[in-house]
Amino acid sequence: MAVSERELANAIRALSMDAVQAANSGHPGMPMGMADAATVLFKDFLKFDAADPHWADRDRFILSAGHGSMLIYSLLHLTGYAKPTIEDIRNFRQLGSPCAGHPENFLLDGVECTTGPLGQGFAMSVGFALAERHLNAIYGDDLVNHRTWVIAGDGCLMEGVNHEAVGLAGHWKLGHLNVLWDDNRITIDGSTELSTSEDIPARYRASGWHVVSCDGHDHVDIRRALAEAQDDPRPSLIACRTTIGFGAPNKQGTAATHGSPLGPDEIAAARKELDWSHDPFVIPAEIKSAWEDIGKRGAEEHGRWKERLANHSDKAEFQRRMSGELPQDFSVAEHVGNLMSDPKKVATRKASEWALEAVNRMLPETIGGSADLTGSNNTKTPDIGPLTADSYGSRYVYYGIREFGMAAAMNGMALHGGVIPYGGTFLIFSDYSRPAIRLGALQQARVVHVMTHDSIGLGEDGPTHQPVEQLQSLRAIPNLHVFRPADAAETAWCWQLALQNADGPSLMALSRQNLPAIATNATEQGCARGAYRLKAAEADRKVILIATGSEVSLALEVAEKLEGEGVGVDVVSMPCTELFDAQDDDYRADILPNVDPSQILRVSIEAGTTFGWERYTMANGLNFGLDRFGASAPAEALFEKFGLTADAIAPKILEALNR
Amino acid sequence: MAVSERELANAIRALSMDAVQAANSGHPGMPMGMADAATVLFKDFLKFDAADPHWADRDRFILSAGHGSMLIYSLLHLTGYAKPTIEDIRNFRQLGSPCAGHPENFLLDGVECTTGPLGQGFAMSVGFALAERHLNAIYGDDLVNHRTWVIAGDGCLMEGVNHEAVGLAGHWKLGHLNVLWDDNRITIDGSTELSTSEDIPARYRASGWHVVSCDGHDHVDIRRALAEAQDDPRPSLIACRTTIGFGAPNKQGTAATHGSPLGPDEIAAARKELDWSHDPFVIPAEIKSAWEDIGKRGAEEHGRWKERLANHSDKAEFQRRMSGELPQDFSVAEHVGNLMSDPKKVATRKASEWALEAVNRMLPETIGGSADLTGSNNTKTPDIGPLTADSYGSRYVYYGIREFGMAAAMNGMALHGGVIPYGGTFLIFSDYSRPAIRLGALQQARVVHVMTHDSIGLGEDGPTHQPVEQLQSLRAIPNLHVFRPADAAETAWCWQLALQNADGPSLMALSRQNLPAIATNATEQGCARGAYRLKAAEADRKVILIATGSEVSLALEVAEKLEGEGVGVDVVSMPCTELFDAQDDDYRADILPNVDPSQILRVSIEAGTTFGWERYTMANGLNFGLDRFGASAPAEALFEKFGLTADAIAPKILEALNR
Repeated sequence: MAVSERELANAIRALSMDAVQAANSGHPGMPMGMADAATVLFKDFLKFDAADPHWADRDRFILSAGHGSMLIYSLLHLTGYAKPTIEDIRNFRQLGSPCAGHPENFLLDGVECTTGPLGQGFAMSVGFALAERHLNAIYGDDLVNHRTWVIAGDGCLMEGVNHEAVGLAGHWKLGHLNVLWDDNRITIDGSTELSTSEDIPARYRASGWHVVSCDGHDHVDIRRALAEAQDDPRPSLIACRTTIGFGAPNKQGTAATHGSPLGPDEIAAARKELDWSHDPFVIPAEIKSAWEDIGKRGAEEHGRWKERLANHSDKAEFQRRMSGELPQDFSVAEHVGNLMSDPKKVATRKASEWALEAVNRMLPETIGGSADLTGSNNTKTPDIGPLTADSYGSRYVYYGIREFGMAAAMNGMALHGGVIPYGGTFLIFSDYSRPAIRLGALQQARVVHVMTHDSIGLGEDGPTHQPVEQLQSLRAIPNLHVFRPADAAETAWCWQLALQNADGPSLMALSRQNLPAIATNATEQGCARGAYRLKAAEADRKVILIATGSEVSLALEVAEKLEGEGVGVDVVSMPCTELFDAQDDDYRADILPNVDPSQILRVSIEAGTTFGWERYTMANGLNFGLDRFGASAPAEALFEKFGLTADAIAPKILEALNR
Repeated sequence: MAVSERELANAIRALSMDAVQAANSGHPGMPMGMADAATVLFKDFLKFDAADPHWADRDRFILSAGHGSMLIYSLLHLTGYAKPTIEDIRNFRQLGSPCAGHPENFLLDGVECTTGPLGQGFAMSVGFALAERHLNAIYGDDLVNHRTWVIAGDGCLMEGVNHEAVGLAGHWKLGHLNVLWDDNRITIDGSTELSTSEDIPARYRASGWHVVSCDGHDHVDIRRALAEAQDDPRPSLIACRTTIGFGAPNKQGTAATHGSPLGPDEIAAARKELDWSHDPFVIPAEIKSAWEDIGKRGAEEHGRWKERLANHSDKAEFQRRMSGELPQDFSVAEHVGNLMSDPKKVATRKASEWALEAVNRMLPETIGGSADLTGSNNTKTPDIGPLTADSYGSRYVYYGIREFGMAAAMNGMALHGGVIPYGGTFLIFSDYSRPAIRLGALQQARVVHVMTHDSIGLGEDGPTHQPVEQLQSLRAIPNLHVFRPADAAETAWCWQLALQNADGPSLMALSRQNLPAIATNATEQGCARGAYRLKAAEADRKVILIATGSEVSLALEVAEKLEGEGVGVDVVSMPCTELFDAQDDDYRADILPNVDPSQILRVSIEAGTTFGWERYTMANGLNFGLDRFGASAPAEALFEKFGLTADAIAPKILEALNR
């Protein structure tokens, strides 16, 4: 007896409602509503091989509506991925199970990216699809020719980042991107009519998308729509008209199925309604077997692809890029050598461009870009041209005024593999892209966020544009390396460290204003250790000045004044607090000895909030910074106004020493 | 001789190019491009009286494209506002001038909100327009019947928040909202074709907007379009086809005019092209006089409105609400009394709902809402119903899944005056609304952000939903009060403090999980001072435990264990670090004496990043928290896993004491 598609779909429904019930938390409505569409997608469209989740040319499946995680856990288990096991599913949302509340790429193969924060799965999928076209342009159809399939709900479509992502995908004509929209007309608060009146298909068409609709519970109709989407050269939105919680006879079609267990009675009723008589977590052998056949469907194509790869002239380089390994000889040492032989006073944003010229020559996998601040962020080097729908193989992306969309797309590109994206905006607008910076850190995605105009040093644009709390707020994000280099050499070394950091994002905070060269022979190791002694006390050490970025040269000035008064001062440049925190006790104690301030006074200088600097200056240290919004004026006037000059700082330190 | 509209517009152009040149920084392109449209708007449409910028029923003019600040400075000066003076304009972008790089509402009357971070002026305007309709529903056309006019550029329209704002305005049918789009087809990076292919009018129509186009340099055509927009019952987008930098013969129509001075040669050429022979900053008397007549145009209508107000039965209440004064007798004391008489173990999100029931009864000016998490945020009290296009007078807003749009709209509502908005989402999604939270703080806007599910205590939803660094990152924002109450009584007092904080936003961080009652008689004053001694040491004081929110009851448990070992422990509840930091030295030294850890060990406990807690625990204190992403599991399992239990913490404190 052949297993029907409805039975295949009901296996998803049963696992989903039972797992949520067992966990006593979760979201059954979406998996039950989209089970039919997902079944058709996996059975007849998605190119994958459950035996090898890392096949480089697999289609990517992204569950943007991540709360419906039981959908993807069911699909992975049923099609025969090594994980999750049925035991993992039984332990849905329990400590140690890879079946977390929301799908996490670092816990399960087959989960291409971590989703849950709404809109971001969709926005990342644009990056996946762009990376695919880029690599296709380089390596050809033989090695790279796959699609990105997405399931998104009303929440994903309402979020602002969706607008940015839709605009980018339409502009880039990403025909290999197909989004199934779970059009169930329900959000958590109730009917979508409570909060929206939008004609969604019309909006997508306005941005160059193809839109097709289907009955999300009619397998023939779903197949027709997916085929149409696949054939259309534009990115496609497939509106799947569904009933949320399909199969739960008393609750389906209502918000009650969205985010709570159905309860034993309703589950029993659903079993009857769906004609599913099996016990919880029991999948009849013939249904499991039919699903496993689906999981093997791509094996043959996978085999042919492996043959093509084996015979391909670019095999080694393709494999290197997909593995994320940098070339063995990658180093900015030569570039830094040139800098040191002719030190220049230069803005670190400009020094970043110089470093990128060296980097982009050595690393063909970098893809640069900016959210409409190319000339200010200095992110475009002369040798890389605009990546457009007519030139997917190029390496510079004009993201438009879409900071969040850019950061999310970069996450997607990095997670696709084969490319290393970096993109620029002003540091203040890290607030706009922050949700994606965080999600990149959680996902361990190698992205470099280039953030220029990193303090009141940007001057006249005023408080709306002057970062104050941004540096510290970003440093507080786990697994994000925030670099704030002090000169051109530190900038180059920090770029190298950022690119070598394969398991997470990095952020470069760069000055608008020119900064003198301060590098020494210790700079390379110093940057790698996060902080280092740039200048040792000449007189008896009484003070340690800790500074970052543009304030390191200021700290040197302060030190000079103090040494002139007979006060010995160490100056510590701290380009990356996260790396310093990770050093061993000995190193940290050497740089910052744990002694009473009456012996050595510690002082921080950073043109941003002082909040958090007590970690390094300890009790009764001094913190120079800015604990208010900035103001509009030329940079020098602002540093003076806010007391961030050697003339203002040195006397305060002397006063503290004399207390 | 009558002054022509083109001459009026050229006065804007001249001031703009000359001020930017004098400052040697700024954005001449937009003011020169939109001078004609702005002239027609101010001359024939905008209801205002330059003599009284605070007239409650004035039209609001919002320059969403804030970088073109010289446009609004020119308009305010020319029409006869007391400020800016021509001297202020000469000092554009200099320290102390109210003519900052971007328009700031706290520096100049007539600047309704602070703009510059793109998209937010537009998004705030939706809040302005909603507040107008709401107050109109309450006070009628006699007192409230005005429009919100916006100038927005391509940047504003590309930002994600624009999608959210457009969706809200269309859904709410805000016919009094009219947006002039500076359709100049140029962004900083060059042609808009570099980054977008969107059919913008089609997108707006898809969300229920009316769209009309005009030649942005043809005054008759502009007038036609504005009249059509004014007559249409839907929100209107007026596409003004313009030339950026209009009048600069060699640079107009290019990105070169966007963000840099034109230079002396091009300015000289523009003077010739525009037939403007006057010296920099000189406006001929007849042109100034014609502009001043425009500034007086609304005086008569203003006079009639004042008469209507004088005779209106709701005059006192209307004036109270527009002034932002709370009712004299506003207090949650009675509510807290009830709580204290019958203490309950309850989630602070639920306690917040209880507090809001009392608050919403006492304050008719509150407008609640949630970004589609009403049942989770507990933001809707039974007595307030859905504010919709059919019921503008109601007080609960279903914002949909639009956190950033919600926060920006709330800023607009607060700045409009007459209402106090509060709105909910999960604390993790403060990352989505963060740019608006910050801009509200800069603008001194009274908004209350209700952020529930404030730690790993939310449990199973996992790391994508568990705030870690959010609390500290928010505390780092200047002028934002972050409250994290420990029980129902603290929650009520913190609500009162948030509502009384008229000059800035507040944020309530609230637990998902139930918390025991801990309040004492000191709670009211303690909350007002930001931190207080909840429990004094019984044995000799050796330890001060500092905790917030859900960890305060944990601190009490730890203290009990330590006292059992003969170690005296103070427990300090710190619901608002910002308020504590603002206390005098004596109070702070009483709560946290500045002594060596060998005498008194300070310990912080908060289920989030420990980053920044050194401010309160000083050198060699202990910080218990979570310096990594969370995990998906029931809350108790997580607190155990991450060592946030009395059994895990107490021994570590004893160990530190014994060192």
